[in-house]
Amino acid sequence: MEKEKIAQAIKILNEKDTSIDLWMVVEKESEVLSDPIMDFIIGSGATWLSFFLFFKTGEKYAIVGNLDIEKFKRLELFDEIFAYKGSPKEYLLNLLKKHDPKKIALNYSIDSPTADGLTYGKYLKLVEFLEGTDFKNRFVSSESIISKLRGRKSAEEIRRIKKAIDITLAIYDKISSHVKPGFTEKEVARFITEERKKTGYEPSWEEDHCPSVFAGPQETGAHSGPTDKVLERGQVVNMDFGVVYDKYCSDLQRTWYILKEGETEPPAEVMHGFNTIVESIKRSFNALKPGVNGFDIDKICRDYIVSQGYKEYPHALGHQVGRVAHDGGPLLAPAWERYGNLPFTPLEEGQVFTIEPRLYLEKQGVVTIEEMVVITKDGAEWLSQPQEKIYLIK
Amino acid sequence: MEKEKIAQAIKILNEKDTSIDLWMVVEKESEVLSDPIMDFIIGSGATWLSFFLFFKTGEKYAIVGNLDIEKFKRLELFDEIFAYKGSPKEYLLNLLKKHDPKKIALNYSIDSPTADGLTYGKYLKLVEFLEGTDFKNRFVSSESIISKLRGRKSAEEIRRIKKAIDITLAIYDKISSHVKPGFTEKEVARFITEERKKTGYEPSWEEDHCPSVFAGPQETGAHSGPTDKVLERGQVVNMDFGVVYDKYCSDLQRTWYILKEGETEPPAEVMHGFNTIVESIKRSFNALKPGVNGFDIDKICRDYIVSQGYKEYPHALGHQVGRVAHDGGPLLAPAWERYGNLPFTPLEEGQVFTIEPRLYLEKQGVVTIEEMVVITKDGAEWLSQPQEKIYLIK
Repeated sequence: MEKEKIAQAIKILNEKDTSIDLWMVVEKESEVLSDPIMDFIIGSGATWLSFFLFFKTGEKYAIVGNLDIEKFKRLELFDEIFAYKGSPKEYLLNLLKKHDPKKIALNYSIDSPTADGLTYGKYLKLVEFLEGTDFKNRFVSSESIISKLRGRKSAEEIRRIKKAIDITLAIYDKISSHVKPGFTEKEVARFITEERKKTGYEPSWEEDHCPSVFAGPQETGAHSGPTDKVLERGQVVNMDFGVVYDKYCSDLQRTWYILKEGETEPPAEVMHGFNTIVESIKRSFNALKPGVNGFDIDKICRDYIVSQGYKEYPHALGHQVGRVAHDGGPLLAPAWERYGNLPFTPLEEGQVFTIEPRLYLEKQGVVTIEEMVVITKDGAEWLSQPQEKIYLIK
Repeated sequence: MEKEKIAQAIKILNEKDTSIDLWMVVEKESEVLSDPIMDFIIGSGATWLSFFLFFKTGEKYAIVGNLDIEKFKRLELFDEIFAYKGSPKEYLLNLLKKHDPKKIALNYSIDSPTADGLTYGKYLKLVEFLEGTDFKNRFVSSESIISKLRGRKSAEEIRRIKKAIDITLAIYDKISSHVKPGFTEKEVARFITEERKKTGYEPSWEEDHCPSVFAGPQETGAHSGPTDKVLERGQVVNMDFGVVYDKYCSDLQRTWYILKEGETEPPAEVMHGFNTIVESIKRSFNALKPGVNGFDIDKICRDYIVSQGYKEYPHALGHQVGRVAHDGGPLLAPAWERYGNLPFTPLEEGQVFTIEPRLYLEKQGVVTIEEMVVITKDGAEWLSQPQEKIYLIK
């Protein structure tokens, strides 16, 4: 996987709209804080200040602390590895002088955390090393490289994500027959966690809110953990959950309704809310294709929900999924400052997105579905089997 | 633990040689890359760009994305939490203007990775928010705060570290009776890993070289994983291993000798090497106390080993241990550029260090012991029961 991703990276460096001579990763003490790209393209961490250089020409070099060298040699990813005892400075300067790159991409980004692995201290040290040269005036953000690299999923990456989705949906399938009114949110979460542990897979994000479980009316944030709140008849319940399969994540939400005594189906206002969410997802899905902006996709969904008489959802419509549940890069999102420029970066084939609108029913609770899709050559494909009917708890 | 550490942090802000008005942690998408201080003092991560402000006065504020607020409220760590939908800028500016801090510590550090959690992208965003104000001229590194905060272990932190040490040494105790000549390094490592898994604890660093196992003569780095190399009679074998107990690490090395047929003890040259390491550790240990520099401690050990006819070890004598095996802050190290100023920062009571010299026997292999000690009011105490005799494999 690492070799495949490095080859893809060098291809991206050569693309017309990227055109970067050198992409350089700076790493130190990965066990404390690791640039997220390390695990992605190198598959290992470094102890001492290290530089990993990927040139447009295809040449690949590493400069590492002396005791790390054996580990990196065994990876067989680099043309040459330089090991230092005192300082990596001379090796770095020699490589830069020899290749004289005009544009040097570093991992910093205001908008994309996945492309923001360079810490400020390491940046300052790099600038100190390059003092008296012109190289420090050639830095650019690697955001576009990493966005493409993480976004354009290979067949193998899609296979793993699908597997993570299947595992998640199979656990959701057990909810309706197991969960009863009177359970607390925490008890439902515990059941999901026990079922997950039986599979042996890790949760896609922090276990304290993976799953989240929200029963009945509430204003609490989507990212908070389950509470002792009791599930009551006549309420809707939603859950947010995912698992990691071979380093790739799923991230899915589903909605249930707890039938009142005598009811055989939810009341009209619940059905209207649920169907609004289903329809809003379909409309967004139908508009997805390479080249469109996430802003427009979010707007289709947001406007439809508001047109049906609901408040707009207080978050983005969807994010990319990969090694982490929030995989960075272009978003399906409104033009709010916190999303920066990400809603306006055109979508590309191979990107995996969530679609996750929500709406609030004053009496019954929060209706929300989160599906996962992949952008194809001329549209999109569902990765998750979409929820089309509200699940019932009796 | 988080409340205790935050109280300690505010005490440190008020110390004469620190004197910082505001310590500010900037965080975003913790699942992708988290400032290591987040888990340490807050115990949770953030999704959207967030600011955590600790004032010298004891006031504590958080500014977080709207959907995160519930989670942070439940931690009960802050006087007030501000939740934003669009941008955190106004909340941040208001807090800064109200308190007007003269010195603002941020988590960046050239030398200490544990104090270098602020990414360059987040730094740039912060500077953008503060454009037109004088606040961005008031930034200082939080290195001294974090160094003290992580270094000065509480009784509870020491208790957990001791527990991690006990678990590690109990596993090492099983080696001599289980391992035989003819085992490969990988087979020895597998045995240790199986024993660890029985305890249920995680390794202190990446599993692929935790444990490391080094049999016989070699120049491979201390940080590389076990290979298919076979353990032979007449060789020394060393291992490096640790476990995490309730978030705190151990990091210990031990050395074995594999007796030749007919031998009842190692030959004189192995004993001389082994005793040199034991004596060098004792001499360093005896010199440890608050106020001394790590450089001097390393020098005592390094000089003694060289005086006995061996090459000096190609690394530092010791590092601090805590939440991670390499916990940052002052080091017992030589004045090599890669260690920056850390060998010259005076030691403090409560810091936990490794002492881990090594030496090379041309024919038999690498002799190395790694002990763990805590600095006390007027000296140091062993946390690990020191290895005084070479372990034998028959």
